[in-house]
Amino acid sequence: MATTRTSLREQLRAPAGPVSLADIDPRGTPDAPGDKDATKAQMTADGAELASLQERLYAEGVSGGPRRVLLVLQGMDTSGKGGVIEHVVGAVNPQGVSITSFKKPTPEELRHGFLWRVRRAVPGPGLLGVFDRSHYEDVLIGRVRELATPAVVERRYKEIVRFEDQLTESGVTIVKCMLHISRWEQKQRLLARLDDSTKRWKFNPGDIDERALWDDYQRAYETSIERTSTQTNPWHVVPADRKWYRNWAVGRLLLEAVTDLAPRFPQADYDVAAQRDRLIDEAD
Amino acid sequence: MATTRTSLREQLRAPAGPVSLADIDPRGTPDAPGDKDATKAQMTADGAELASLQERLYAEGVSGGPRRVLLVLQGMDTSGKGGVIEHVVGAVNPQGVSITSFKKPTPEELRHGFLWRVRRAVPGPGLLGVFDRSHYEDVLIGRVRELATPAVVERRYKEIVRFEDQLTESGVTIVKCMLHISRWEQKQRLLARLDDSTKRWKFNPGDIDERALWDDYQRAYETSIERTSTQTNPWHVVPADRKWYRNWAVGRLLLEAVTDLAPRFPQADYDVAAQRDRLIDEAD
Repeated sequence: MATTRTSLREQLRAPAGPVSLADIDPRGTPDAPGDKDATKAQMTADGAELASLQERLYAEGVSGGPRRVLLVLQGMDTSGKGGVIEHVVGAVNPQGVSITSFKKPTPEELRHGFLWRVRRAVPGPGLLGVFDRSHYEDVLIGRVRELATPAVVERRYKEIVRFEDQLTESGVTIVKCMLHISRWEQKQRLLARLDDSTKRWKFNPGDIDERALWDDYQRAYETSIERTSTQTNPWHVVPADRKWYRNWAVGRLLLEAVTDLAPRFPQADYDVAAQRDRLIDEAD
Repeated sequence: MATTRTSLREQLRAPAGPVSLADIDPRGTPDAPGDKDATKAQMTADGAELASLQERLYAEGVSGGPRRVLLVLQGMDTSGKGGVIEHVVGAVNPQGVSITSFKKPTPEELRHGFLWRVRRAVPGPGLLGVFDRSHYEDVLIGRVRELATPAVVERRYKEIVRFEDQLTESGVTIVKCMLHISRWEQKQRLLARLDDSTKRWKFNPGDIDERALWDDYQRAYETSIERTSTQTNPWHVVPADRKWYRNWAVGRLLLEAVTDLAPRFPQADYDVAAQRDRLIDEAD
């Protein structure tokens, strides 16, 4: 199960230039530490390490450090954004986590620029923030459903790159993951939701309408990734037909990012011995 | 390990009328399912059940149901508010959780009534909200540090009761827990923070200053509990010197509350068979 710590992000990073999602196998398992069971076991171990590093990052934040991590999750319906949150983010102390689900914009949100609601959701220092969908919806559904003109969408790509650069400068490490599933797999998962009375609430007839635009969405993803994958804030395309691979991979990408930050418990900014004496000398 | 599901809250509920914290043993383990190991095992089982019920509540919320749960955690420094969040709330899918830590009010918050920031943090439908400290700080430190006059503090008790009644009417089940530790146990925990370089960031010299006012805080807690423990929204005093008991007990109080709600996965509001046909009949 020995895998090199820095390899996965190289492996899954979107190529520079044009992106062809059709050339990336959604059932693939690049760099997986083994079969399903071995990979799950590794994910549990990685989760414990992530939680431990996250505690250090949190401690830094409490002590005034600006650094934080933001996981941006995008993907078609059923691609597993919720599953990643439950199984990967769930390994971390919930006090250190900030999750924002971006739904259809409210009337108030629509009165502002598309990044307005996103800026308000940026995680505070020391936190692991998660965007379940994100500002990328405004260049995905925005483009496919023609909610914005092509010129506006083009401008948004640039705004996004600038916005993310600003975040990086202010201490935010962004990990962008596109959960890449096949159209066939989505069909199975939608059917599974319909067939299970405990899952029907997750299904929306509109999901099938969106599915009819599958190819348009794939094109929109390709263009979005091409325009917004930068050296600083690259996209990762995570094969997501196999849930166990998807969860391990996203967890590992996070772990690689936080490991790079090498967060450390802060030194005391008070005299430890003196405080100890105060406690010991108490009359009680 | 058979314990009756509805017993713990009766057991830990603050008595009607005057409250004497000195009469409640912080090392007690009322209704514990067994020793430390047995209790921890039960906590794990309870956590899984809580997570399962919480998923149903979340599904209700997605489908328009108004119900939600709010855990209010109060207690002296080191009493374990953070530990409860990590170990109890951490068992639940983080998507269904909303945690707010109330710190010293900001200048903006001080320009508003003391409940202003609290109203904004009330969890949305379907969520398990957690207040790590709460509006009760305004009648605790508010009273001990004389940040408000006695008359203002008295008025706040009434405002709190009214506010919580309103929340209950709007679908919020409130679970109020005071984590009750002994002064001696706090000393051990503060010393442990000083002695462990990975915990020093949790310590503040101000903690010892607050500790010097221990008796005043106990009185303030007693009065707050007496004034705001109602039939609808009672306080629970949770013995907290033993971490394993504290965690089990708070988890069990939550489980009892959510079990009472008996949340159920919503029925589909669409024609399941028709949607199934749409998927099956797709040309792909």
